[in-house]
Amino acid sequence: EGEDVAFIKSSMEDAIMADIAAILDELDMEEALFVLRALDTAVAADILIELDEDTQYRVIKAMEPSELAILIDQMESDDAVDVLNQLLVKDREEVIGYLEKKEKTLHIMELLRYDDDSAGGLMAKEFIKANQNWTVVQTIEEIRRQAENVDKIYSIYVVDNKEKLMGRVALKKIILAASNTKIADLYDENIVSVPTHMDGEEVAEVMRRYDLEAVPVVNVKNKLVGRITVDDILDLIREQAEEDMQAMTGISDDVEESDSVYRLSKARLPWLLIGMVGGLLGAGFIGFFEEGISAVTALAFFIPLITATGGNVGIQSSTLVVQSLAAKSVFEESLTKRFVKVLVVAVLNGLVLATFVLITVVFFYGQPLKFGLVVAIALFSVVLLASFMGTLTPIVLDKIGINPAMASGPFITTANDLLGLAVYFSVAMLLLKL
Amino acid sequence: EGEDVAFIKSSMEDAIMADIAAILDELDMEEALFVLRALDTAVAADILIELDEDTQYRVIKAMEPSELAILIDQMESDDAVDVLNQLLVKDREEVIGYLEKKEKTLHIMELLRYDDDSAGGLMAKEFIKANQNWTVVQTIEEIRRQAENVDKIYSIYVVDNKEKLMGRVALKKIILAASNTKIADLYDENIVSVPTHMDGEEVAEVMRRYDLEAVPVVNVKNKLVGRITVDDILDLIREQAEEDMQAMTGISDDVEESDSVYRLSKARLPWLLIGMVGGLLGAGFIGFFEEGISAVTALAFFIPLITATGGNVGIQSSTLVVQSLAAKSVFEESLTKRFVKVLVVAVLNGLVLATFVLITVVFFYGQPLKFGLVVAIALFSVVLLASFMGTLTPIVLDKIGINPAMASGPFITTANDLLGLAVYFSVAMLLLKL
Repeated sequence: EGEDVAFIKSSMEDAIMADIAAILDELDMEEALFVLRALDTAVAADILIELDEDTQYRVIKAMEPSELAILIDQMESDDAVDVLNQLLVKDREEVIGYLEKKEKTLHIMELLRYDDDSAGGLMAKEFIKANQNWTVVQTIEEIRRQAENVDKIYSIYVVDNKEKLMGRVALKKIILAASNTKIADLYDENIVSVPTHMDGEEVAEVMRRYDLEAVPVVNVKNKLVGRITVDDILDLIREQAEEDMQAMTGISDDVEESDSVYRLSKARLPWLLIGMVGGLLGAGFIGFFEEGISAVTALAFFIPLITATGGNVGIQSSTLVVQSLAAKSVFEESLTKRFVKVLVVAVLNGLVLATFVLITVVFFYGQPLKFGLVVAIALFSVVLLASFMGTLTPIVLDKIGINPAMASGPFITTANDLLGLAVYFSVAMLLLKL
Repeated sequence: EGEDVAFIKSSMEDAIMADIAAILDELDMEEALFVLRALDTAVAADILIELDEDTQYRVIKAMEPSELAILIDQMESDDAVDVLNQLLVKDREEVIGYLEKKEKTLHIMELLRYDDDSAGGLMAKEFIKANQNWTVVQTIEEIRRQAENVDKIYSIYVVDNKEKLMGRVALKKIILAASNTKIADLYDENIVSVPTHMDGEEVAEVMRRYDLEAVPVVNVKNKLVGRITVDDILDLIREQAEEDMQAMTGISDDVEESDSVYRLSKARLPWLLIGMVGGLLGAGFIGFFEEGISAVTALAFFIPLITATGGNVGIQSSTLVVQSLAAKSVFEESLTKRFVKVLVVAVLNGLVLATFVLITVVFFYGQPLKFGLVVAIALFSVVLLASFMGTLTPIVLDKIGINPAMASGPFITTANDLLGLAVYFSVAMLLLKL
């Protein structure tokens, strides 16, 4: 075993943490723990952070509180909080009790108070700040003092005597400035900051818009309290995109292809069942028109055409709304203007589709003109209604605080199936006098 | 007009480029050009880069080649190339002819050779590199020399005498090291680089995995040729996510809600028409079973149930595959293992759904048991087939170089509608002996 430990240490010394983490993800729990315990605590801490969500959770659960505390002592505060947030409150307190670094412990306890997904929950307490009255030499001294704690520096944030954020100095400027230059003469006051309560998604959009690699976080009094770096934002964006896509396709839990059969099944069943209930309601609905179908069997032929088109139009409409909601454009078009546009696009597309269908049904399928008109008019109405449903639903969901991407999924499809059937058979009853 | 210009200059001096760009996006072309011309060329260049894609394109087209060249002279090479790539080859050459900075012109011409979406097309030529034999003082001299060209430094890349990438030194280390320290003694050789031909999406995944704010780009000989910064990657990720979502929902062009009615219509029609053709084929297909439907009208009732379930299952399956393809996990499960899992999940979910439907059809809708079995068996088969189609299609598309997200959209829905109908009526014919 001694040899094993030596081998693990030497072979992993030059590897990159994320790669080691990827290997550990593939080992079983016993093996992963063995490797982590064999490594230096600083290295083990870095790897623990990089582990896949599931593996990380299981490793954290399997470790003794005192053992976990040693690793957390080596982490930056934001990573420490991510780890601690996975424990029950009771276990969390126990781990915190074992922490050795006083200042970091206070930082961690402060960060734990913020909502996970807010700027406060994403920020770290490790960053370099300089008082505006300092000189370059004093600032370099501060960098030296903090060098071990702050991994990536980027900019130095400048504050006044009351800790209020005044601006920032790029590290480049510090290198090139004369050592007795005052920070007050160097700093750039055009600085973008975010408040602690800002939603993580919004922080991501701010960083993307202003091309930031890090953003300072301020409290309500504009006091500098933390910093968010872009690496955390990249993870958040990816998670968000996956969540949206899954919401759109009716997968109700955050699952991956590599998850267990049980988890995969469970995540997919709820929306399938809801779709099924929709289908059964549809069946009951068509049942009302049993006599009509007996009289004009061809009515049954075009059911999938109507429901599929309604579904497709609805999903397209809601996707466009979901994306414009996500982009949070500074200048939003008014609701009226948006709906007028939706209407015009729907009328245009509806006319093209209805004409196409009318010609096919009458000339290709040899149905009477009157029947062709039933299908065409129903189709046109479905395109219009589905466009409105598809546009309205995500806006309403967003207003009441539900992820609007949910609307683009099975919900809109199921609703539009029923709507489409209602329109189709109503038009048929009216025109064919069934 | 003189006053206007003075007002524009003073009011925009302290604003952030991205905010000015957002305002210009809302102005008409004349006004936007007027503002850009009133500003200092360095500021105007920054704003031009930050403009919304459509506005940027129109501004570029509206400018004189000589005027555009003055702005491009102020840009970093990657941004310059993004602008030039929007011009026709003829116009591009003309603009390049007006460029004044020799070295930058060569850089731009080098970058134009790479594919837009590759690491080579994303990288900039502005970065700081140091020979491993230099001292810290020499390196600081180099930083001073390049300070104006390189906006954000992050790390200094270390090369040998043949320009081969050896490692990197964080700016922090340069500040803290004694001035006669050799770079060779400072640099970290654990460095992640990407080759020029790597796809942009893969670069994004590398930067996310290794938490990088910038990544050096090397050619086939491992010579350092450029650098990609995370701000470009954030834009790329957002565009990619939007594209995938649109591909999934059958929007064939990159449109936004705020685009013109014509563009919106045009982007949405192709897949709607394809869906329509699918629906019409379905109609023809059901037509074959006209007699069967006349005999057992209830068969028509459950058409939407079957098609909707097939669609939902197919979309769920393909989304999971698309996401695991996007994540490009280091250790992929084998194809066989994946399909066995898909099969098990499909059987489980299929059984739950079929049982639910059987009970409802027989007890709630009062249909004969035999008919209930037809619907249940068809449903179960559809769940199985749709799972396989949904899993296989994106894998095949990916292999032949088409965006697999396309598979999760109308394509899979249309295909599964037809498949579902085929299964449903085949089962009905067999069991009900129609």
